[in-house]
Amino acid sequence: MRWPERVTVREVGPRDGLQAEERVLSTDAKVRLIDALTEAGFRRIEVTSFVHPGAIPQLADAEAVMARIRRRPGVVYSALVPNLRGAERALACGVDEVTLFVSASETHNRHNVRRTIAESLAGFVPVAERVAAAGVRLTGYVVTAFGCPYEGDVPEERVERIVAAYRDLGAVAVYLGDTTGMANPAQVYRLCTRLRGRFPDLELGLHFHNTRGAALANVVAGLQAGVTVYDGAVGGLGGCPYAPGATGNVATEDLVHMLEEMGIATGVDLDRLLAAARLAQELIGRELPGFVLKAGKRSDLVRAVRAREAAGPQGG
Amino acid sequence: MRWPERVTVREVGPRDGLQAEERVLSTDAKVRLIDALTEAGFRRIEVTSFVHPGAIPQLADAEAVMARIRRRPGVVYSALVPNLRGAERALACGVDEVTLFVSASETHNRHNVRRTIAESLAGFVPVAERVAAAGVRLTGYVVTAFGCPYEGDVPEERVERIVAAYRDLGAVAVYLGDTTGMANPAQVYRLCTRLRGRFPDLELGLHFHNTRGAALANVVAGLQAGVTVYDGAVGGLGGCPYAPGATGNVATEDLVHMLEEMGIATGVDLDRLLAAARLAQELIGRELPGFVLKAGKRSDLVRAVRAREAAGPQGG
Repeated sequence: MRWPERVTVREVGPRDGLQAEERVLSTDAKVRLIDALTEAGFRRIEVTSFVHPGAIPQLADAEAVMARIRRRPGVVYSALVPNLRGAERALACGVDEVTLFVSASETHNRHNVRRTIAESLAGFVPVAERVAAAGVRLTGYVVTAFGCPYEGDVPEERVERIVAAYRDLGAVAVYLGDTTGMANPAQVYRLCTRLRGRFPDLELGLHFHNTRGAALANVVAGLQAGVTVYDGAVGGLGGCPYAPGATGNVATEDLVHMLEEMGIATGVDLDRLLAAARLAQELIGRELPGFVLKAGKRSDLVRAVRAREAAGPQGG
Repeated sequence: MRWPERVTVREVGPRDGLQAEERVLSTDAKVRLIDALTEAGFRRIEVTSFVHPGAIPQLADAEAVMARIRRRPGVVYSALVPNLRGAERALACGVDEVTLFVSASETHNRHNVRRTIAESLAGFVPVAERVAAAGVRLTGYVVTAFGCPYEGDVPEERVERIVAAYRDLGAVAVYLGDTTGMANPAQVYRLCTRLRGRFPDLELGLHFHNTRGAALANVVAGLQAGVTVYDGAVGGLGGCPYAPGATGNVATEDLVHMLEEMGIATGVDLDRLLAAARLAQELIGRELPGFVLKAGKRSDLVRAVRAREAAGPQGG
């Protein structure tokens, strides 16, 4: 196995995590969290979503959040948009990246945005033009890329066709979303190898949910296929709308911990990220599923045990 | 990436899981759980540990458990033993496999069994002779093989020396234990490739704890290194003595789910295993950390969502 020297970790908790949480955070709380993530050293943060405020009440204050976060130069602050109206709002806030989304499953796309895949892609054309005119990065998600809760398996050809459509729209990166945690490492390696061969100049990113515990295993397969962009949600914020109580996005700090332990640089300060994860847990008011949040870093374990030793016998 | 067609999954929950649980199960409960695991189709089950009954009260009824489980022909029922006395007890119960254990860390071994590594290995000689005379399989764990909570990194040479010692004792398999969840995939691949090259005829098994969420990622690395034996604990029973509240062994059903989704045969009936995991959860009386236990199988998700669809609109 060969490993890349460095990878880009995108923090998507403020968007994909918070939109799936029952508790709606105040604008203040979101800004505190996003600023803490900036401080942790991320170069890419998905801040919010410019959908209709009624659709996702958790993110209804998108403008206020964008206006109040402390933006560090060089960091790409992105937002999800469903249509031209959303893109106009996002651009008016000065986002650095506009991210479109469409499902690789017709049924899921219909449930999600009440459109066929073709209608979604056609609707992206004016958005892409508007984003290009503004000189802003355009990117796109293929959601349910590894399986759909309605349709089951999703043909690789369909994912490939959507990626091609994004490229034709001028997208600089495409993120494959494992929206309900259905991916497995063999599938990830196969699909990513295929797409990297077909679209060598397009940045490919992977967005895994840890619903069935395999997110980091899927990252290992992605790394072998040459993918160097991975998403996570701080603390493991979020959940799975199809499986109540189940885990959503992989916890970013678990991802960063594994990569750094492997000698793969992420540029993220893990201690600051863990502080942000503790903040996320406090703000959201429930125990978050991140592992390192509970167990501590590998190196901290050694330090803690040594300190206990140094203190002498503990009477059992 | 190339994947094996089949792997052997060893169920170690009745030993490594239960010994780390606060609640002590009755003999009846243990027998029910182990019988359910036999029904699920495992070919290898680590049943108990023949240590001094005072040392691990959770497993003090080792003889009674061994005597009462329903043993299916062809299944290897193994037990952990620390010394000749333990081996005598295990052999008297008719175990199919005796498993020794020693740490790759001097400090951990001293804390665990109050011996140096050399003293442990020397003590194994009469045990190995006794086990060979009985015609029973001899195997051994190298615990803290990927890092020690006291010493931090563990030199690969030391792991290799212990594996060589086991081979010289006549062991047919050696299991590398990531006792406190310190392994990462790059390390797993490196160490396993080295050991497989040095000991091509010895069966190598991997025993991962999911303390920092990377257990299945480490399995992927092990598969790439050609390792085809993996341990799990049903439901994710157990914990980590060095990090209260943290996860212990990887949940066997999460492991089996991932492997089967990848097209790798395990011979385990996942539905029966999930039933055993629910039983384990009920017996132990706390929510177990297994993911598939909460989220359901990938295929069940699709089925459940379809059934909901077929029932018509749900009013939101």
